[in-house]
Amino acid sequence: MSKAVVPGQNNDVSDWWTTSIIDMAPGQIRFRGHPIEELIGNASFAQMIWLMTRGDLPGAPQAKLLECALVAAVDHGPQAPSIAAARMAVTCGLSLNGAMANAVNMLDDVHGGAGEQAVELYHSIRAAVVDGMTIEEAAASKIDEWQATGSKFIPGFGHRFHKPEDPRAPRLLGLVDEAASEGFVSGEFAQIGRAIQKVLNDRKGKPVPMNIDGATAVIYAELGFAGPLARGLFCLSRSVGAMSHAWEQMQQGGRNKGPTPPVYRWSYDGPNPIEPG
Amino acid sequence: MSKAVVPGQNNDVSDWWTTSIIDMAPGQIRFRGHPIEELIGNASFAQMIWLMTRGDLPGAPQAKLLECALVAAVDHGPQAPSIAAARMAVTCGLSLNGAMANAVNMLDDVHGGAGEQAVELYHSIRAAVVDGMTIEEAAASKIDEWQATGSKFIPGFGHRFHKPEDPRAPRLLGLVDEAASEGFVSGEFAQIGRAIQKVLNDRKGKPVPMNIDGATAVIYAELGFAGPLARGLFCLSRSVGAMSHAWEQMQQGGRNKGPTPPVYRWSYDGPNPIEPG
Amino acid sequence: MSKAVVPGQNNDVSDWWTTSIIDMAPGQIRFRGHPIEELIGNASFAQMIWLMTRGDLPGAPQAKLLECALVAAVDHGPQAPSIAAARMAVTCGLSLNGAMANAVNMLDDVHGGAGEQAVELYHSIRAAVVDGMTIEEAAASKIDEWQATGSKFIPGFGHRFHKPEDPRAPRLLGLVDEAASEGFVSGEFAQIGRAIQKVLNDRKGKPVPMNIDGATAVIYAELGFAGPLARGLFCLSRSVGAMSHAWEQMQQGGRNKGPTPPVYRWSYDGPNPIEPG
Amino acid sequence: MSKAVVPGQNNDVSDWWTTSIIDMAPGQIRFRGHPIEELIGNASFAQMIWLMTRGDLPGAPQAKLLECALVAAVDHGPQAPSIAAARMAVTCGLSLNGAMANAVNMLDDVHGGAGEQAVELYHSIRAAVVDGMTIEEAAASKIDEWQATGSKFIPGFGHRFHKPEDPRAPRLLGLVDEAASEGFVSGEFAQIGRAIQKVLNDRKGKPVPMNIDGATAVIYAELGFAGPLARGLFCLSRSVGAMSHAWEQMQQGGRNKGPTPPVYRWSYDGPNPIEPG
Repeated sequence: MSKAVVPGQNNDVSDWWTTSIIDMAPGQIRFRGHPIEELIGNASFAQMIWLMTRGDLPGAPQAKLLECALVAAVDHGPQAPSIAAARMAVTCGLSLNGAMANAVNMLDDVHGGAGEQAVELYHSIRAAVVDGMTIEEAAASKIDEWQATGSKFIPGFGHRFHKPEDPRAPRLLGLVDEAASEGFVSGEFAQIGRAIQKVLNDRKGKPVPMNIDGATAVIYAELGFAGPLARGLFCLSRSVGAMSHAWEQMQQGGRNKGPTPPVYRWSYDGPNPIEPG
Repeated sequence: MSKAVVPGQNNDVSDWWTTSIIDMAPGQIRFRGHPIEELIGNASFAQMIWLMTRGDLPGAPQAKLLECALVAAVDHGPQAPSIAAARMAVTCGLSLNGAMANAVNMLDDVHGGAGEQAVELYHSIRAAVVDGMTIEEAAASKIDEWQATGSKFIPGFGHRFHKPEDPRAPRLLGLVDEAASEGFVSGEFAQIGRAIQKVLNDRKGKPVPMNIDGATAVIYAELGFAGPLARGLFCLSRSVGAMSHAWEQMQQGGRNKGPTPPVYRWSYDGPNPIEPG
Repeated sequence: MSKAVVPGQNNDVSDWWTTSIIDMAPGQIRFRGHPIEELIGNASFAQMIWLMTRGDLPGAPQAKLLECALVAAVDHGPQAPSIAAARMAVTCGLSLNGAMANAVNMLDDVHGGAGEQAVELYHSIRAAVVDGMTIEEAAASKIDEWQATGSKFIPGFGHRFHKPEDPRAPRLLGLVDEAASEGFVSGEFAQIGRAIQKVLNDRKGKPVPMNIDGATAVIYAELGFAGPLARGLFCLSRSVGAMSHAWEQMQQGGRNKGPTPPVYRWSYDGPNPIEPG
Repeated sequence: MSKAVVPGQNNDVSDWWTTSIIDMAPGQIRFRGHPIEELIGNASFAQMIWLMTRGDLPGAPQAKLLECALVAAVDHGPQAPSIAAARMAVTCGLSLNGAMANAVNMLDDVHGGAGEQAVELYHSIRAAVVDGMTIEEAAASKIDEWQATGSKFIPGFGHRFHKPEDPRAPRLLGLVDEAASEGFVSGEFAQIGRAIQKVLNDRKGKPVPMNIDGATAVIYAELGFAGPLARGLFCLSRSVGAMSHAWEQMQQGGRNKGPTPPVYRWSYDGPNPIEPG
């Protein structure tokens, strides 16, 4: 028998885990107050993601933009550490859950944090505009501030492979423009993203492409997601790629698959090297 | 400059990582042959998940059923080890990626494997029917086989909390029935699921509810997903709950949050206990 | 104030987490009944590992053998998926804990389970000897049984790189022999390991080297560790390599380091390949 | 056949993974230049840990101090999120590697980073002393600096449970004092640790105990370990506790063990709560 939780009284054990996300009774489950059986079949997966993280249900146009960002970031191939980790994992005996966990764990500050940082950068630029700067001044000023903290990488911009353009960025921005023209989002973060790109292009004297993190961060900011959720949503999206590659690797077989063909091994630059035989 | 990969010749390093999921060139990304910019805005997230794991794009009715399964399993509250792990993780300093990784890693054979096992059980029953048994005989026989291997738990059936019925199961099965009546799926795995439930109810003399794993496994089997992908898809779905709870916990704050209020600690039953002071 | 745990009464919350490993009161910590301040400075790390997992303190000769096994397995280079994962992880922004977690997670059935399986194989051979077989018959018979379950790989034997001999195995077995000659261990599992090796060599007509898992499993079995702890101890040992490589990579720098030099990418064998430009 | 690595020539694939930790040829393994068969049986586990992370072999007194720190931090009971995660994990079906991975992943900035931060704090104080401050001034000044960055928690000091003293700290510091009196370490970081404690006690007007992180950080700093390795070594130490608790839980059994007894569930404070039945 379940111990009754009495509102307003001391329920210290139950209160240790307090949430406004899910409520349950035998035979009943509600998310943010909505019975699960009403959500199933009526809410899209994107709407459910929004409801769970935000507390309200988005309209269809907003959910569609979220879906576009989620579709765009699923995978960047086996060269991405996240995907490589997932593929290696199944050859080590892990099930898909373990492979996906290793992949998602990789999405830390460098591999998965750029979206979060970009959202925060965009907001800082927006705040400077609100305070009276032009958007160009604000972009230039906040880029300077960012780089003064020691990193030359502006989160969300530049790509070592996709030059002059990351094909995902203009497509995503185009969809934001459409949504803005119909009044579903403000469009101000798309402007901010483009202002950053212009400053970077001008300074470099060559195109510095907005990358997937920069473009999805525009969407997440337009939709009102907080920075940390930009990272979380990227993890969710990339989990699709990790699952797919892990499953493909499972079908390919292999045992303890290392990063390069075994014939190459690695280079040793320490003391007392073994003489070639 | 990229080393040219020449089809048919020795490209041992590139061939070490071979995939049919993603192809890339500077400025171009294709998934299963589809350019990313055509997928963004046209494929739903569920369709993208299908494309990535299966290689083809599903029709809208199939994608909708997949979406229903993904919506249904996002969360089961902070008592679920996956969710508790995610919430603890952020109080230990992890970002959302680390919290989600710890949660998904928890979804191993016991916490996350029931869907995979249920898909396999359903297929074994279907094979027995193809071989001439009635569906009732096949269900009874395969339940016996399963339990003979030592586990009394039939994957996908029974729930310690939701009695007499898990509210997600009848809703999901109803949607399968609808789709079957319109010819989008065969409906045979829904029949198999119900046949198992009938055998279990009869044997126990009381309702043994089909749970979320049993119900989503019906959908995954109807849609043609292999068993291991049932686990992977559950991981993807539950990642939404993990992200949401981790984010809520991040906003609540807390440091090194243990499982129970600290005042309770644990019970020690080893040698030389410390005398109560 | 801590809620008093009253032995024999209902302390359901405290009892949910019951352990015989650790007891605490403010200012006091005991492991298996030993005050921590007595263990620090008196128990070696190997003795502490034994105490924690087994409940008693080993003698110095037993602790020394355990230490030899732990020293032997720390690392097998960046080609090992565990080590590669640790190095990739720090380039993705993870701290050493995350890098070590990704490495240890990799040590599943294939990459980290051979020691556990070898301990179990050795015990099955020992049981057959107790039942009257000669050790050669028992080894041959249990190898047959193992392979009949579908795997050609005998856990703990064979190495794709170290031929004809893994340098760690004879050294470890020599130390077991020494300890056996002095009566510190029985030596029977070293005999069993050698019996397996003889059967495999004879069948193959060429040396099938006992590998690190086979050799450390001899030690773990001699010392009375259960199979699953052979895996756990390997994880502990390999954590040293993971930490060391992650730390070296941290000092080398690098961002989002993929498995192979980026110039190589991967091979795509799916539909609609992008034409080389 | 292994591709010959020719020093000074282009070996781009092998060079992608360059290390000074391990060198191998068939039948040969060397760590930092030492053949593995010479290390096994001669180097203690603590010496091996030092060799792997630092490149040289420590003397016995230094290795003993390292060992004391490793022994001291293995476990702090099932209330620690790391240990709770390990125990939950095995009830979800994970093997010891997965349980240990989840535990170690938890040891991020808040749960596992205090040792790293304390080493860095100690070094900043030492630098101020070198620049001419008294140790008391330096401690007070660097504490102020630390707290000015927004955290009231001084890493390595204070304990919510062990009051007035964490029993591990005075024992570890006593061993540092002994080693310093014999000239094996300088003893200056023990002084710095005590200076911090004095400042904190004076400011609070009550004892602020040096905790396990503060005390092991003294040892790691005395021995010359860099800050990040203090975290790594804590992960290694705590892995012992995670393994031991996971193994105990495996023997206790249980399925999908949540944080509190299931009868308590959690408290819901969101919209539209389910009415108590």
